[in-house]
Amino acid sequence: MTTLLALFRRPDGGDEALETFRRRYHGEHLPLVAQTPGLRGTRVWRVTEALGTETDLVTVTAMDFDDRAALDAGLASDAMRQAGRSLREIAPGLSTLLVLEDDPGA
Amino acid sequence: MTTLLALFRRPDGGDEALETFRRRYHGEHLPLVAQTPGLRGTRVWRVTEALGTETDLVTVTAMDFDDRAALDAGLASDAMRQAGRSLREIAPGLSTLLVLEDDPGA
Repeated sequence: MTTLLALFRRPDGGDEALETFRRRYHGEHLPLVAQTPGLRGTRVWRVTEALGTETDLVTVTAMDFDDRAALDAGLASDAMRQAGRSLREIAPGLSTLLVLEDDPGA
Repeated sequence: MTTLLALFRRPDGGDEALETFRRRYHGEHLPLVAQTPGLRGTRVWRVTEALGTETDLVTVTAMDFDDRAALDAGLASDAMRQAGRSLREIAPGLSTLLVLEDDPGA
């Protein structure tokens, strides 16, 4: 399994900007993501606290694909291209996208 | 569902330090975590790439609990206290611990 993990930082503009981000992320971005070919599952989390530290992260989303080839095909799809464009509008410069592989240990 | 998400930054010392971290994380830390009461599931990922940016993150782990009360009870358990001590030895100052709640949208 290969997972695309999106980490979102808090937008400038206080609680109102954060609520706008959340509303557009769910209402505009995720419906596009959902159309991505090869996407096996999506989990969206809200960050409620950081233990023993501060964090500027507010949302974390995990998108699962069968393997790296399936992720790459998904990223190249029209759905993901549109999703990327929506993200640059909704949360410009606020996301980090990580490619993860399940790590069962040695 | 409440999830404890641990983000680990790359240790100083190059690939050898990273391999030592991974070996001890799997061999010493995760067996302690596994004994945590109320823990419903654990997923460990290796960060293989960041898309369009750099990242110092090398490992991400998601630990699921039924709810925030179950997480708090888990954190207060002997198993998690030992796991915390092992982490301070294995990866001092290299982790960020986030509390996440599933976010189905409005």
